[in-house]
Amino acid sequence: MSYKSDIEIAREAKKKPIQEIGDKLGIPTEHLLPYGHDKAKVSQEYINSVQGNKTGKLILVTAINPTPAGEGKTTTTVGLGDGLNRIGKKAMICIREASLGPNFGMKGGAAGGGYAQVVPMEDMNLHFTGDFHAITSAHSLLSAMIDNHIYWGNELDIDVRRVVWRRVVDMNDRALRQINVSLGGVANGFPREGGFDITVASEVMAILCLANNLKDLEKRLGDMIVAYRRDRSPVFCRDIQAAGAMTVLLKDAMQPNLVQTLENNPAFVHGGPFANIAHGCNSVTATTTALKIADYVVTEAGFGADLGAEKFMNIKCRKAGLAPDCVVLVATVRAMKMNGGVAKADLGAENVDAVKEGCSNLGRHIGNLKSFGVPVVVAINHFVNDTDAEVEAVKDYVKSQGSEAILSRHWELGSEGSTDLAKRVAEIADSGVSQFSPIYPDDMSLWDKINRIAKSIYRADEVMADKKVRDQLKQWEDQGYGNLPICMAKTQYSFTTDPTRRGAPTGHSVPIREVRLSAGAGFVVVVCGEIMTMPGLPSRPAAESIHLNDDGMIEGLF
Amino acid sequence: MSYKSDIEIAREAKKKPIQEIGDKLGIPTEHLLPYGHDKAKVSQEYINSVQGNKTGKLILVTAINPTPAGEGKTTTTVGLGDGLNRIGKKAMICIREASLGPNFGMKGGAAGGGYAQVVPMEDMNLHFTGDFHAITSAHSLLSAMIDNHIYWGNELDIDVRRVVWRRVVDMNDRALRQINVSLGGVANGFPREGGFDITVASEVMAILCLANNLKDLEKRLGDMIVAYRRDRSPVFCRDIQAAGAMTVLLKDAMQPNLVQTLENNPAFVHGGPFANIAHGCNSVTATTTALKIADYVVTEAGFGADLGAEKFMNIKCRKAGLAPDCVVLVATVRAMKMNGGVAKADLGAENVDAVKEGCSNLGRHIGNLKSFGVPVVVAINHFVNDTDAEVEAVKDYVKSQGSEAILSRHWELGSEGSTDLAKRVAEIADSGVSQFSPIYPDDMSLWDKINRIAKSIYRADEVMADKKVRDQLKQWEDQGYGNLPICMAKTQYSFTTDPTRRGAPTGHSVPIREVRLSAGAGFVVVVCGEIMTMPGLPSRPAAESIHLNDDGMIEGLF
Repeated sequence: MSYKSDIEIAREAKKKPIQEIGDKLGIPTEHLLPYGHDKAKVSQEYINSVQGNKTGKLILVTAINPTPAGEGKTTTTVGLGDGLNRIGKKAMICIREASLGPNFGMKGGAAGGGYAQVVPMEDMNLHFTGDFHAITSAHSLLSAMIDNHIYWGNELDIDVRRVVWRRVVDMNDRALRQINVSLGGVANGFPREGGFDITVASEVMAILCLANNLKDLEKRLGDMIVAYRRDRSPVFCRDIQAAGAMTVLLKDAMQPNLVQTLENNPAFVHGGPFANIAHGCNSVTATTTALKIADYVVTEAGFGADLGAEKFMNIKCRKAGLAPDCVVLVATVRAMKMNGGVAKADLGAENVDAVKEGCSNLGRHIGNLKSFGVPVVVAINHFVNDTDAEVEAVKDYVKSQGSEAILSRHWELGSEGSTDLAKRVAEIADSGVSQFSPIYPDDMSLWDKINRIAKSIYRADEVMADKKVRDQLKQWEDQGYGNLPICMAKTQYSFTTDPTRRGAPTGHSVPIREVRLSAGAGFVVVVCGEIMTMPGLPSRPAAESIHLNDDGMIEGLF
Repeated sequence: MSYKSDIEIAREAKKKPIQEIGDKLGIPTEHLLPYGHDKAKVSQEYINSVQGNKTGKLILVTAINPTPAGEGKTTTTVGLGDGLNRIGKKAMICIREASLGPNFGMKGGAAGGGYAQVVPMEDMNLHFTGDFHAITSAHSLLSAMIDNHIYWGNELDIDVRRVVWRRVVDMNDRALRQINVSLGGVANGFPREGGFDITVASEVMAILCLANNLKDLEKRLGDMIVAYRRDRSPVFCRDIQAAGAMTVLLKDAMQPNLVQTLENNPAFVHGGPFANIAHGCNSVTATTTALKIADYVVTEAGFGADLGAEKFMNIKCRKAGLAPDCVVLVATVRAMKMNGGVAKADLGAENVDAVKEGCSNLGRHIGNLKSFGVPVVVAINHFVNDTDAEVEAVKDYVKSQGSEAILSRHWELGSEGSTDLAKRVAEIADSGVSQFSPIYPDDMSLWDKINRIAKSIYRADEVMADKKVRDQLKQWEDQGYGNLPICMAKTQYSFTTDPTRRGAPTGHSVPIREVRLSAGAGFVVVVCGEIMTMPGLPSRPAAESIHLNDDGMIEGLF
């Protein structure tokens, strides 16, 4: 039996005019700012007007550590949202926007998959509503203003060797990773080293996704550290007087983007910070607005639960005053098998023992999530080759961990396949059993916070860092940054810092390579490995085969 | 008496929903792709569907050489468009989009002025519908793919010293004018010199504005020369296999943007190539589409008539098969006075003799325009301090040149002030007296074409160029580029290459500094002075005072 590709299904979607989707949520047409007929931004005025509404239930979708077998986190997020609507609930989905640049390296992706997708897929892989372009512009303006300040006399005494504000472009361009700027003589400024990151790595992106409103956005932008003086004192974005103009450039980008699922249910697709050097969730504005206009909001966090859910809880929820009412942990039989030692090529064959063996990874995530005080449901994202015995093995294991697993067939069947999951999730969310709290308090030392995450979540024995790193953390505490949460940047493939260690390892240590302060976003980034902030293109980039066919349809992007 | 500022007037505009504006033109709602409530793109499908319609009358608005007194070319374009609508004609306006970056240096500007403006002004000075971001993306993709090609083995044998494709960003950032890229080791590529221009200087911008359709766009993009080999043979964009993906990135940007005047008349605002290294007119798509859906189309060209109108005729009209039915030459009493030797500070006082003295600049433009076979009307763009005697002096002079001048008060009164101009222009356009032809044929040698422009338009005695330049022109002719038109890049302030020489000088020579081939756009750029393709910010950039006020309104941008 053959299945349609995601893009084929997406192109067959019977999309409704976006005003009809907004209408389901009660958003008046004048407060929906359309971008074409199938995308719209929700006006700031409307967002302000719903603040007094009651708050809906928040459901986080997270996953086990990803394997090459795929886990389908976004697919499950979409499928669950459709399922909730199917059983008569007023539900919304909140997911992240895709970055433009990487689509020209590897093929772009769907938002979801099979019959659980958000559309329009082409636009979401291209310019969408221009949010990322606005972020690139705002970031670039600050970059230009810093060098311009130095050029015109450097009143702020910036040490040109210590400009930490890099430039960004939304393209995979390795040639820009490390560059020398201001060459060519007096008229072009003072030569110095610089470089470009990809736009999603910009602190502006993280801020846009964490800011509560435009005032908060402007304040956080002003708080960013852009350079240091010879005496190591920081120079802030506000010293450059760039935050106001950056806010003007970002004012439309701050408004959530409304689109729809294949089943015409509403979805916000808004923001897309890195899940390593940033927190990897869609915007606070989208999530909090959705909670005011829908009764159930299904959202997701980047990578596996050890990274994504941890940051969602400890950074986003803490800072935005959010509290999840239920967490859905996505697992697949195939991923269990891979965790149990089966090679990708052999995933087609039934192997109940391997499934059982691989469940330890799932088990640890369940335990970790419970430590935040939230109820956990495991969603087994069904693949058509999964056997009943394999599915039962997962269910039994999850039961043994004091939780429950529900098979969901949204990929194949849309909401018809996810009603069981939706019913149970709604029941739990409605029950009020969640007693959410972050796993460390604000006033714990930065070092202790890192240890808390490493030991409680990664189950490491120790955190290793040289004196320089510890001194740096101490210095930030002295400067008043000690109350910030931690943003871990480590491999997504393992609880450890070694991407090849699957399952649920213990006895490992977490070596810290460097720490970075994102003073505007409001977290301390702890880097435990190589972090690539500017990808390159492969030897045969997807761009070479992307084109418009004679019917004006895009080919090669998917 | 005090007058309202442009932004005050713009903010008081009673805008109609963009669907109503489209409705005036007969564009069905489903073919208008809205961007908010006051901007829309016209669908490619609709553009295709109107190709069989009869073609309207084309009116070009151009001007004398600009002086610091201001001439009001866009204001007159808008005022004339409104005037034509007022007298019952179905008329459209076609003007250029503004570049984002420069607004953060000097304050942004209106599209038009006083009561002759196109709105929404804020959006048009910010991201608008994202066209320029799309151009930046498409350009950046090619940049990344070139270095990526070199990185993965350089099969095309590109000489890294001869990569002529620079990078672009839509920001005034002098630090990026000259840079070294690919530093930092093997993983980052082969170090080489590079640099950034501002987006509007990209050849992609020129191509977007000259392409007839998406197929033509893709072909022209492929034709661009991006580098040379050691043997000096060119490497094309098509060799890099980038043109298809660039076209996908540009497909929405190719659709004209519909907005409205203060009087709710339709305007296309689309494309914005440099008026020096490119041809400086709005897109061919916008102009040709407008001609199919309106009876009169008023458009403008960059700088004064010696540059803007010359290129409009010899490049845009020639290549797009357009023929202007009437040319409106904008002059002001104040500009005549400055051309007559009056300092800016003294412009307030009546000075009929200076007006008469300064009219020689106007006279030469009239003669030049007539040499294209087109009828010319001078529009005296009225300033409230102009005296009757001064206005009469201009009228008398124009009459002596075998043309006619009409006073127009659209800035102060909107269309009520421009009905006289509109009536006469419509009459001339309807009369069919225009016998347009470019002033040089395709098959003239490049050198002779340059001489034709310099001698017929600038009234220079000679063109000066060293052997290297002449050899280069010869080589391009041998390579099959001899049939291309010339794109002059020289000061806009004088008929000569010396910006301080006002009036109508003779006996000068035109020194050529360099020539550049824009093989995709389809012209040879002849550079006669310093051309800045990446501006810098001033010591106190406008950005420092741009911000959102407590009501969410933008302050400091205007």
